[in-house]
Amino acid sequence: MREYTSLSKDAMREELKAARAEYAALKAKDQKLDMSRGKPNPAQLDLSMDMLALEPTELVVTRKGTDVRNYGELAGVDECKELFADLLGLQMKNIIMGGQSSLNLMYDSVVRALLLGVYGGSKPWGAQGELKFLCPVPGYDRHFAICETFGIKMINIPLGEYGPDMDLVRQYVEHDASVKGIWCVPKYSNPTGITYSDEVVRAFAALKPAADDFRIFWDNAYLVHSHGVRDEKLLNIFDACREYGSEDMVYEFCSTSKITFSGAGLAVLAASENNVKFILQQMKVQTIGYDKINQLRHVKYFENVEGIYRHMQEHAALMRPKFNVVLGFLDREIAPRAIGHWHRPCGGYFVGFEGLKGTASRAVALCKEAGLTLTPAGAPFPYGIDPDDSVIRIAPSFPDVAELTGAMKLFCVCERIAALEVLLAGE
Amino acid sequence: MREYTSLSKDAMREELKAARAEYAALKAKDQKLDMSRGKPNPAQLDLSMDMLALEPTELVVTRKGTDVRNYGELAGVDECKELFADLLGLQMKNIIMGGQSSLNLMYDSVVRALLLGVYGGSKPWGAQGELKFLCPVPGYDRHFAICETFGIKMINIPLGEYGPDMDLVRQYVEHDASVKGIWCVPKYSNPTGITYSDEVVRAFAALKPAADDFRIFWDNAYLVHSHGVRDEKLLNIFDACREYGSEDMVYEFCSTSKITFSGAGLAVLAASENNVKFILQQMKVQTIGYDKINQLRHVKYFENVEGIYRHMQEHAALMRPKFNVVLGFLDREIAPRAIGHWHRPCGGYFVGFEGLKGTASRAVALCKEAGLTLTPAGAPFPYGIDPDDSVIRIAPSFPDVAELTGAMKLFCVCERIAALEVLLAGE
Repeated sequence: MREYTSLSKDAMREELKAARAEYAALKAKDQKLDMSRGKPNPAQLDLSMDMLALEPTELVVTRKGTDVRNYGELAGVDECKELFADLLGLQMKNIIMGGQSSLNLMYDSVVRALLLGVYGGSKPWGAQGELKFLCPVPGYDRHFAICETFGIKMINIPLGEYGPDMDLVRQYVEHDASVKGIWCVPKYSNPTGITYSDEVVRAFAALKPAADDFRIFWDNAYLVHSHGVRDEKLLNIFDACREYGSEDMVYEFCSTSKITFSGAGLAVLAASENNVKFILQQMKVQTIGYDKINQLRHVKYFENVEGIYRHMQEHAALMRPKFNVVLGFLDREIAPRAIGHWHRPCGGYFVGFEGLKGTASRAVALCKEAGLTLTPAGAPFPYGIDPDDSVIRIAPSFPDVAELTGAMKLFCVCERIAALEVLLAGE
Repeated sequence: MREYTSLSKDAMREELKAARAEYAALKAKDQKLDMSRGKPNPAQLDLSMDMLALEPTELVVTRKGTDVRNYGELAGVDECKELFADLLGLQMKNIIMGGQSSLNLMYDSVVRALLLGVYGGSKPWGAQGELKFLCPVPGYDRHFAICETFGIKMINIPLGEYGPDMDLVRQYVEHDASVKGIWCVPKYSNPTGITYSDEVVRAFAALKPAADDFRIFWDNAYLVHSHGVRDEKLLNIFDACREYGSEDMVYEFCSTSKITFSGAGLAVLAASENNVKFILQQMKVQTIGYDKINQLRHVKYFENVEGIYRHMQEHAALMRPKFNVVLGFLDREIAPRAIGHWHRPCGGYFVGFEGLKGTASRAVALCKEAGLTLTPAGAPFPYGIDPDDSVIRIAPSFPDVAELTGAMKLFCVCERIAALEVLLAGE
C-alpha cells in the first residue's frame, strides 16, 4: 500500500477501479448502518437502570427537609448542586441545576442575553445591532444552530491539537465589541476529540473583551467521558479566571445525558456567583423550578463524585472497543494511503476525520448511497459550510461493534474513492 | 351581626374596638400561618407515590419501539401525547409534551414570538415596537411577570362571573395590532375560581384580530381540578374555533403539577397543527427532547383519561374540606357584615376575595403582623397594582385544616378591621 499522491495517474486509475469494485460489493449487501449522531448505545443506558429502581420514599425529602415533589428550589436541591460543584471543582453557589438538556440551558442563556442582557452588561445583546460569536471549527452543529436562528454572525476560528487559535480569538474578542461569545467544547471536543491545553485555558481566562457583556460558552459535555486508558486533565477555567479576576466571563455547561440517560438526565449551568444571582433573577420568571425528584434520584444513585467516576468506567469499557474499531480501520486503510488525518481521542464521542480537500461531501454521499448514514458533511461548521469540504464527524457510540465494522469498512472505501477522484480530477 | 354600612359611627367604633381586641388575642398566639401560594399539600403529593414505584423495565420502550432513555422525540412519545390529547379533546398532532413546567412553556412561547415570530405572522413581535397583552383581572401574577420582564404593556380587562368583558377584549384585539396576546385561566380561574361560559369561549373563537400574530394564551391549569361535588364544563375552545377557522389563534397549556408532582410532572402545549409544526421547527434548536422517561411513567401510571379522573377524585376529597373551611368563615364572618364578596368555586386552588375598596393591602399587612402570610395585595394585577386595593387571593391547599382554621379566623378579623378603618376614615 502506498501514499496515493506518490502513485502515477495510471496506478491511481487502477486503484480507483479496485476501490469501486469493493464499493459495489459492499453496496450489494444492502446494509443499513448509522454513524451519524453521538447517541449512547442501549447497553450504556442499561448501566443506569438501578437509578429507576430506588425506593419511592428515598425520593421525597432533601437533607434540609425540602419536599422535592412540590414547587420551589429554582437553583436545584443542595445535595445535587454539591455533587456537581464537586465534579466541576466549584462551590454550590456556582451551580444552577436546570432540566435535563444542557443544550436547552445554552439556548436559554443566549435568549436571556438577547432579550434581557447579562450581568455587568449595559444593555441586552438584542439592542446592540450586529452580534458575533466565535466558533472554533470543526465544532458542534447544535451550538451553531442557536446562533444561526437568532441571526448572530458566526466567525470560524481554527481549532488545533491544543485548542482554538488564541491569537485570533484575542484579536476578535479584544477589538470588536460586537463579539459577544465563543462556543467551546474544551475536553474531548466535538468532533475532533482534542482537549484544550492549560496554556489555552489560561489564554481564555486572560481575555480582556472589548464588550462588557462577552461570555465564553464552555460546554464541558465530556468532562468524565474518558475511554478508560488515560484521562486528559482539563484545567478548571474558573481557577484560571480567578488569577485574572475574569470569573464573570464564563458560563460552563454539562449534563448527565451521556452519564445516565440522554433523554432524562440532569443539566447544569455553572458560573460565578454574580452570574448565578443575576441569572436566577431572570430565570424565576421562566419557571418555579426544574425536576427535583430527578435531582434527588441522581444524588441517591451516585452518592458522590467517586460514584460518577466508577460509573463512567463502565461506559468506558463499552466505548473503548468501538473507538478501537474506528482507529484500527483508519490506521490500516487510510494512514498508509495518506489521504486523511485525525486526532486519536482519549475520550468523548467522536473522531474528527479530515480527508483531502474537496472529498467530504462526496464521501458522505457515497456512504449514504450504500446504506451508511453519516453526519452531513459541513455540519461541524457554521452555516453547514466546510470551506475545505474535508471534515467528516464519525460517531461510533450507537452502533454495535459488528455494525461499526461494516460501517468503517464502507467508510474507508468511500474515502479512497473520493480521494482518488479528487487526485485524478482536472486531468 | 349587621351590615357595617348600616351601623352608626359610634357602633362602628365599638365594633372596631372589639375586632382589635380579637386581633390582639390572635396575634398573641404567635402563630406561623401561610395561605400565600397554590401549592399542593404533602398528602396530595402522596397520592402519586406509586408512580415512582413502577418497574424500571416498564420505563424503557414506547409502543412504537422508541427507547425513551435516549435522545429524540422532540414532541414527546405517542402514548403520552395521546393521553393528553384525549384529556383536552384534541388529537396527537396537536400536542407538544414539554418538560415539567407549563409556566416555562408559556415563557418560551412568548420568547419565540418575540425573537422569531409566530405561525402566520409577518415578523417577530420584538421587531414591531410597542407590544400589548390583555390581562383579565384579577389574574395570575406569574403570567403578568412574563409580560413585565419583556416590557410588554399590560391592559386590565375586568373578569366577571362568566369570563372577561368580551366587548372590551374585542375592541382592543380587533382595532389595535400592537395587542399580541391575552392571558386566560378559563376554568376555575386563578384567583376567582370562575369558569368561562360557552358564550365567552365562542366570543374568543370569533375574534378577528387586527394583528396577524395575535395569540390567546389559554392556561387550562385546573382542567380536571373540580372539588368533587360538581365539575363545571368548559367549552373546548378548539371546537369553537373550528367554526370560525380560528384554530391558529390559540395556544393551550396544562400540566400535571397539581395532578402528580408540582416539581416533577408533565407540561403540555396544545395548538393547531400549523402552530405545532411551526413551533417544533423553532424548538428543535432549543433542545433535542424533554424527559421521556417521565412521560412514559405518567402513561403507565394513569393508563388513560379515566385514570386521571379517578386520581383527581382523591385530590378533591382532600381539597373540599379546605374550601369548606374558607367559605364557611366567609359566610359566617364576612357575609353578614357585607364587607366583601367572592365566587364559590367548584374547583381550582383559590378563592378570590374582594373586600371594600382600599382594604386589601391593609388587611394583608395586619395578617402578616399577626403571623399569617398571604399573597401580597396587588399580586393578581399587572404591575402588582390593584386599582381598587380590594382583592386578596386566598390559597387554602397547602395548610392543613387546623392551620387553615386559624388562618381564616385571623383573616376575617383583619378584614373587619380594615373595612371599619375605611368606613370610619375621612371623619
